[in-house]
Amino acid sequence: MVEWECPTKPREASGLDPEAVHLRMDPGSRSKMVPPEDSPYEDSWAGDESVGSGGIGEVRETTHPDFSVGDIVVGRLRWADYDVLTDDDDLEEVDLDSAPIRSKLHVLGHTGRVAYVGMTEIADLQEGETVVVSSAAGSVGSIASQIARIYDCRVIGIAGADDKIDYLVNELGIDEGINYKATDDIQSELAEICPNSVDVYYDNVGGEISDAVMNEMNTHGRIVQCGRIALINAEGGDRPTGPRHEGLYIKKRLRREGFVVDDHEELYPEAESKLEEWYTNDQLHHRETIVEGLENTPDAFIGLFEGDDIGKTLVEVSKPPGERND
Amino acid sequence: MVEWECPTKPREASGLDPEAVHLRMDPGSRSKMVPPEDSPYEDSWAGDESVGSGGIGEVRETTHPDFSVGDIVVGRLRWADYDVLTDDDDLEEVDLDSAPIRSKLHVLGHTGRVAYVGMTEIADLQEGETVVVSSAAGSVGSIASQIARIYDCRVIGIAGADDKIDYLVNELGIDEGINYKATDDIQSELAEICPNSVDVYYDNVGGEISDAVMNEMNTHGRIVQCGRIALINAEGGDRPTGPRHEGLYIKKRLRREGFVVDDHEELYPEAESKLEEWYTNDQLHHRETIVEGLENTPDAFIGLFEGDDIGKTLVEVSKPPGERND
Repeated sequence: MVEWECPTKPREASGLDPEAVHLRMDPGSRSKMVPPEDSPYEDSWAGDESVGSGGIGEVRETTHPDFSVGDIVVGRLRWADYDVLTDDDDLEEVDLDSAPIRSKLHVLGHTGRVAYVGMTEIADLQEGETVVVSSAAGSVGSIASQIARIYDCRVIGIAGADDKIDYLVNELGIDEGINYKATDDIQSELAEICPNSVDVYYDNVGGEISDAVMNEMNTHGRIVQCGRIALINAEGGDRPTGPRHEGLYIKKRLRREGFVVDDHEELYPEAESKLEEWYTNDQLHHRETIVEGLENTPDAFIGLFEGDDIGKTLVEVSKPPGERND
Repeated sequence: MVEWECPTKPREASGLDPEAVHLRMDPGSRSKMVPPEDSPYEDSWAGDESVGSGGIGEVRETTHPDFSVGDIVVGRLRWADYDVLTDDDDLEEVDLDSAPIRSKLHVLGHTGRVAYVGMTEIADLQEGETVVVSSAAGSVGSIASQIARIYDCRVIGIAGADDKIDYLVNELGIDEGINYKATDDIQSELAEICPNSVDVYYDNVGGEISDAVMNEMNTHGRIVQCGRIALINAEGGDRPTGPRHEGLYIKKRLRREGFVVDDHEELYPEAESKLEEWYTNDQLHHRETIVEGLENTPDAFIGLFEGDDIGKTLVEVSKPPGERND
């Protein structure tokens, strides 16, 4: 049972008033739905402000010199049919000619940057390494997996459904997939698939899947803690327990590092340039799961934690330009 | 009940035959007393070879061109009253004039290098940071704590006895000490002592003490996994469990890294030069716990895990030159 009321009133009067077209659903937003002191993000939603996330909108009214009515913009929008923004909100006009506009909400936007920074800067990925990605058919996971493939790495994706494994192997060209729901022993499967162990683990889930991968890490392996979707709903209560890995860190000289992409803005130009190059060269694919109607936003968000979707889940609040019947 | 027989036969005929003077007791040796596949070290002792560790010896017989009878050498020696070494064994002659010879077994030797590499290379310690060291009165811990003090950091040492805290604060000049056996709530004590949180945690113990420190880490904090003395005897059986920290890694952008100093030989000249400079300038102190008699080696080793000692525990197999009555 979800209680959520679509807000319909602007936050305050302002000069830029975009109508929402698409809203991006991110599991990381769950971490903002907590008291500020428990959130990794500065813009926690503990107050009575409405929830928001990345979105695409069309400018309806504006007195801002950089924008005109009809501009398509991408930035942080409320989960609402429109928002009222100020100069401080970081809005960017979308070039409709360069790529499908929704790509700015995933592969050519925030999601792509997360995968790029995590794989290149945090993991320090090297060509030819063995890489495991958890939640590999998800939005960040599928881009992270493909970046590793572009680096000529051997890539193993972990996901929770056969259609996801099929997508990873047959559409994205990932080397191997493990359906964790169809095995009792992820570690043994990994050991068989990766006789040379795992150099980089791009972790989006945490919990027992990650324990299994930890046990198969190679010497000097790196674990990128990008998400912990298996644990995120347990936070605030007693913290879940698991096996201690202190000995493994020493034995294998492992490095685990958590990151939030906002800390790495200096890498955005490089990330965007690389992602656009790969996307244009057809080396990087991305699937969308579109949920129609603002009123379905809470269900779309909760679905992220139930493993429903492949690729990026977007809520379509209204049809984008070019897909309208009017 | 310890079963251990002092070996008295040489391993094989060779050209260099030193008599042991001192043997260094390292908790890390525990990790070699396991099957090779479970050891972080290449020279695991799963076979029937006798146990060894760093030691100081006096050359009794030699056909090696670089050594003469009577030379004092430091290197890896068996836990025995003499050893027979080959060209492959990495022995170094000790300069008796430069420092007390036993310092080559700790502050100016392996122990000092471990602390130096862990603090500078792995932690990337910066001046003025807040640093916590566990097992801070131990051999590596006390040097790591003093290096942080030399870097003008605020240093908090965790140890298990009031005399150790007294040693840390009043002899070594560490800012604060926490006796973990005298508190029910290490985390609250830390929070009070470190209102700005912990930038670097130099971890020698693992387990519950480390959980407490993890919860007080600052954004972009680094955890150096140097040892895990609280857990090391549990390895091989079911791995101990503890709270999962995946969420903390992201929220605080933490980095944890395990290391084995042997991987960083390129830093040894720098480490030795710095350690010798600090030692000569009286900025670096080190206490020894001397256990007399080869037959007491097993008890001396086991004592490491019972928190008996301050500083480096050495077994004195025979008196060193200068301390002999003959």
